[in-house]
Amino acid sequence: MAHTISKISKMAFLMTLRKARRSFSSSTRVLSSQPAVGFVGLGNMGNHMARNLLKKGYPVVAYDISQESLAALKKDGASVAGTPAEVAKGVTKLVSMLPASAEVQEVYAGKDGIFSTVQKGTLLLDSSTIDPSVSQDMAAKAEALGAVFMDAPVSGGVNAARDGVLTFMVGGPEGSFAEAKELLDNLGKNIVHCGAVGTGQGAKICNNMLLAISMIGTSEAMNLGIRLGLDPKLLASVLNTSSGRCWSSEIYNPVPGVVQGVPSGNDYKGGFGTALMMKDLGLAQNAASSVKANTPLGAAALQIYRTMVNHGFGGKDFSSAYLFLQEQDKSK
Amino acid sequence: MAHTISKISKMAFLMTLRKARRSFSSSTRVLSSQPAVGFVGLGNMGNHMARNLLKKGYPVVAYDISQESLAALKKDGASVAGTPAEVAKGVTKLVSMLPASAEVQEVYAGKDGIFSTVQKGTLLLDSSTIDPSVSQDMAAKAEALGAVFMDAPVSGGVNAARDGVLTFMVGGPEGSFAEAKELLDNLGKNIVHCGAVGTGQGAKICNNMLLAISMIGTSEAMNLGIRLGLDPKLLASVLNTSSGRCWSSEIYNPVPGVVQGVPSGNDYKGGFGTALMMKDLGLAQNAASSVKANTPLGAAALQIYRTMVNHGFGGKDFSSAYLFLQEQDKSK
Amino acid sequence: MAHTISKISKMAFLMTLRKARRSFSSSTRVLSSQPAVGFVGLGNMGNHMARNLLKKGYPVVAYDISQESLAALKKDGASVAGTPAEVAKGVTKLVSMLPASAEVQEVYAGKDGIFSTVQKGTLLLDSSTIDPSVSQDMAAKAEALGAVFMDAPVSGGVNAARDGVLTFMVGGPEGSFAEAKELLDNLGKNIVHCGAVGTGQGAKICNNMLLAISMIGTSEAMNLGIRLGLDPKLLASVLNTSSGRCWSSEIYNPVPGVVQGVPSGNDYKGGFGTALMMKDLGLAQNAASSVKANTPLGAAALQIYRTMVNHGFGGKDFSSAYLFLQEQDKSK
Amino acid sequence: MAHTISKISKMAFLMTLRKARRSFSSSTRVLSSQPAVGFVGLGNMGNHMARNLLKKGYPVVAYDISQESLAALKKDGASVAGTPAEVAKGVTKLVSMLPASAEVQEVYAGKDGIFSTVQKGTLLLDSSTIDPSVSQDMAAKAEALGAVFMDAPVSGGVNAARDGVLTFMVGGPEGSFAEAKELLDNLGKNIVHCGAVGTGQGAKICNNMLLAISMIGTSEAMNLGIRLGLDPKLLASVLNTSSGRCWSSEIYNPVPGVVQGVPSGNDYKGGFGTALMMKDLGLAQNAASSVKANTPLGAAALQIYRTMVNHGFGGKDFSSAYLFLQEQDKSK
Repeated sequence: MAHTISKISKMAFLMTLRKARRSFSSSTRVLSSQPAVGFVGLGNMGNHMARNLLKKGYPVVAYDISQESLAALKKDGASVAGTPAEVAKGVTKLVSMLPASAEVQEVYAGKDGIFSTVQKGTLLLDSSTIDPSVSQDMAAKAEALGAVFMDAPVSGGVNAARDGVLTFMVGGPEGSFAEAKELLDNLGKNIVHCGAVGTGQGAKICNNMLLAISMIGTSEAMNLGIRLGLDPKLLASVLNTSSGRCWSSEIYNPVPGVVQGVPSGNDYKGGFGTALMMKDLGLAQNAASSVKANTPLGAAALQIYRTMVNHGFGGKDFSSAYLFLQEQDKSK
Repeated sequence: MAHTISKISKMAFLMTLRKARRSFSSSTRVLSSQPAVGFVGLGNMGNHMARNLLKKGYPVVAYDISQESLAALKKDGASVAGTPAEVAKGVTKLVSMLPASAEVQEVYAGKDGIFSTVQKGTLLLDSSTIDPSVSQDMAAKAEALGAVFMDAPVSGGVNAARDGVLTFMVGGPEGSFAEAKELLDNLGKNIVHCGAVGTGQGAKICNNMLLAISMIGTSEAMNLGIRLGLDPKLLASVLNTSSGRCWSSEIYNPVPGVVQGVPSGNDYKGGFGTALMMKDLGLAQNAASSVKANTPLGAAALQIYRTMVNHGFGGKDFSSAYLFLQEQDKSK
Repeated sequence: MAHTISKISKMAFLMTLRKARRSFSSSTRVLSSQPAVGFVGLGNMGNHMARNLLKKGYPVVAYDISQESLAALKKDGASVAGTPAEVAKGVTKLVSMLPASAEVQEVYAGKDGIFSTVQKGTLLLDSSTIDPSVSQDMAAKAEALGAVFMDAPVSGGVNAARDGVLTFMVGGPEGSFAEAKELLDNLGKNIVHCGAVGTGQGAKICNNMLLAISMIGTSEAMNLGIRLGLDPKLLASVLNTSSGRCWSSEIYNPVPGVVQGVPSGNDYKGGFGTALMMKDLGLAQNAASSVKANTPLGAAALQIYRTMVNHGFGGKDFSSAYLFLQEQDKSK
Repeated sequence: MAHTISKISKMAFLMTLRKARRSFSSSTRVLSSQPAVGFVGLGNMGNHMARNLLKKGYPVVAYDISQESLAALKKDGASVAGTPAEVAKGVTKLVSMLPASAEVQEVYAGKDGIFSTVQKGTLLLDSSTIDPSVSQDMAAKAEALGAVFMDAPVSGGVNAARDGVLTFMVGGPEGSFAEAKELLDNLGKNIVHCGAVGTGQGAKICNNMLLAISMIGTSEAMNLGIRLGLDPKLLASVLNTSSGRCWSSEIYNPVPGVVQGVPSGNDYKGGFGTALMMKDLGLAQNAASSVKANTPLGAAALQIYRTMVNHGFGGKDFSSAYLFLQEQDKSK
């Protein structure tokens, strides 16, 4: 779930946004019967999502800080815009997929941002995973302008984005959900209305916190059992037919060779990076602080993933928790 | 999974074992075509297991420190013995179900213990959940006497014991597993050979450590989500169709009203007690220390369950982790 | 270190700030040879600090949301202002002592805030304990207006504020430190220049995180030792003459009766509240996230103090960690 | 505090003990007016302690599994014995200094152990750091033989052992403490009677648990502060004049260059090894489990030191917690 624009420094991104003055591509022709959809953020996830909209016949007006990403999407039929504001000018539906809270604030509320041109009645769907309070702030600003902002973070990863089978957790007004779902049905197979704005982020954050805890727990249990003499596959089968069963033990087991086709069997390449899990766990801790929710294991999980990032595991799949925990003293 | 004998102080138990000199019940008559089976430990779990053996036609020779438990089983057809040694004298197959390592050591290796009379070729199946190193020690002593000791801890709880659908995790020599399975098939539906002696305990301990971590993690995630404004059932459904899914979120959700028929809906009564989970997590930490396995979340889970026991949650089901974590400051 | 204004809801505070239009007290006459000093925030700490400035001959121009606090200080010789902006108009030196980041942002950068009237060359000393990044943001805004903002959080508590023996940890330009120290010398006995703006907060946060960890650690060690049969005073004396020695074990022991004159001997009343420690630990975690610093025990300490607050310990001194940890199951 | 005999495998040690049949050195001549003292365990600590007894005029009868250590001590005037039993035969005072519980059990209660020959009225002082329950068990066995066993673990390290300035924490009968103190005064400067047998261990364990927590806490606070822009020496001076002050921040600061003459300034060589701290933290967790004492930070500290050992820090001083925690992602 890395994003192209996260590869470029945030500073550069913001400078570009401020300086961008290229005019809206004059070649844009919207022949489709579907309404045009704006798309901001063509990273690893967003570029697949925008392409799926094109495939389903939606004219797409796109913006990204990366000219290559924009050019590639233009080849596939999209119109390109020079700023988020230019995107917003031409559409009444818009999807954004950005790395973090700061980019969402800049793209929506910054100079040349969406809010500077957004039309009344526009539906803004933000699929970024960010702080729920930022989503609520953006929604309030949108409402003041007569638009509707909904948070719609996803689960499922790059392959699910490509195959259009993402899960969307949507927060926002009940009355706008049908319109949101109609659009998101083109990008995912499971569109859930979670409640008021911010609850989509809440659901995503809670899921990923539990996922991190389960993954570390699975890694600890597998490592302990193996050191006690158990065969990894047999131990996994015991867990998976018993009360220890979880997605991490069953579908995405972190011990190489137990499950086929997952990152643990490919040197922990691909999948969902440890640095991204660290980010989501940080969001969960912020949210927990804001409502004084006790999260002893969630807090410990953040520290463990941060230790892993600091020790060079940031680019590996988050199931590399097992790799980190199973390390043994070589001096003996 | 509490045991009758655990209700009596361990000191009294050991004194009784030492002083017991009642002779083997002279009324014992074995008419069945099945071989006699010894049974030591008629607690909440053991009394159901022994009754299931009787129902399947096995003559049972039983011992427990509680005279009531013994008398009740005698009414149902069992023979009763005055000491573990007397049990062992009359059988070549024996099952034990005891509260902890100390009782296992006393019942097998203590005065008037099983090892003082065990016959060559006897199969000893210990279903207690104890330290794997104690299982290994008992197995070595049994081997020296020409008998075979296997650890065979269970998962499934009192109802599964009553209904004969327990899972047995068996550790011991491959060559004896068929004989063990033949007997245990009368008590459970899933009999797994885990490897050498001690690995049954290892599998049980690993499962319960992961279970505790998942349960606390589910409690944290549900509590955080609810405080962020999510409906509990909707949040559970998001988790259960996503990567946070685990047995604790799906089958045994700790938030009242989310799943029917589990302890969270009945004031956390019944089920698997917090004090017993604390015990199993202590065994996991001992085992982890012995092999220097890192278990940061397992260690934290033990501390959380110990805090709960110290704050009066010992008798509640272990899903009461949610009850403990969701507490809010009433002064505001 | 609670503040009067924290007793009133933040909402009310902000509303008052916006509505306040009372004119600057016309009776203000500055006869002293000392320059006038502005003071914003007359809570438990601030009211002592402002009084100490009056005692040392400084004319004080004060503002607080609480009219009682303002009236009381006026009796003692201060001038009172209707808004922070009015305070700033009349002074070139100003001290603020506020509950949290949001109040600092409002008092300085909000409507009728200090920045709306601040004169060039004014020295602004903020003694609140807040997020270092907010201090840095305020300093940048001040610099743009030709003023100097320094963070100057304190350690020492209410008694030290009253007695003028606080420690100030000051962050800001080297060239302004002498002027800051000259003023703060009237309020404290130890004025430390920590480095660039924000480092005062950094030093404070680091100290309090280590303090919380040491206090919980001392509570754990004392509780364990007492349960193992050691006399509390004897155990404390062993720790205090050995490598376990810390401020919490030696000066502020959390076990009642070990040290005289501390909150543990007075039912944990007075001192530094658990809710305030929770707040500082939250700041530490935010700061740690911002620089990706590993703080496994700091994160655990936050969770423990949050659990305590959620269980009704928020108003007790933070040494009540011992009270929470020593709880025992009464059912046995 | 490593021991020579810990360098040889425990198995070899026990085999040697069992096979040893060398006769008591016939050349032993006791000319001193002081009574002979037995000494078992001539490791890094024990060899200095035994030498100090010799210097003070006590005839010493020594045993160690290492022939070199024995030969070296013989050169310095000690008599040597072939087994612990031979040592016990010739003395009425005996000191032992062994690596762990298993060695203490073997040396006292094993074949050719002290209890096989101990004379009535003998005072046995065990300075090993072991499980308090093992100390209690040894004391009960000694009492049955008419001897007195006291636990007397030390703090202070190798240099303090050499210089005779150790602290001894002594557990055992009040009536025997004077005799114990008279002997231990030759080896240390601070001899504390902690209470009944086992409380010496309890005090030692509690001190070292608090020490580990403080050291990790200091490492976290220093690392966080440094990343926030604070100078290490300045930050340490703030902590050390404030409430975060502890032995680890003041005397033994883990950041290189802050304090002179400590392991952090010498690549974390020397001092008290991480693997030994891990061992003591394991004893603390065992003791805490036995009395159901909550030790959330103690448990976390054990996991952190175990992680460090598993990642190759076992031989470094325990202040290398800073080295482990300050690691940063090099990929960025």
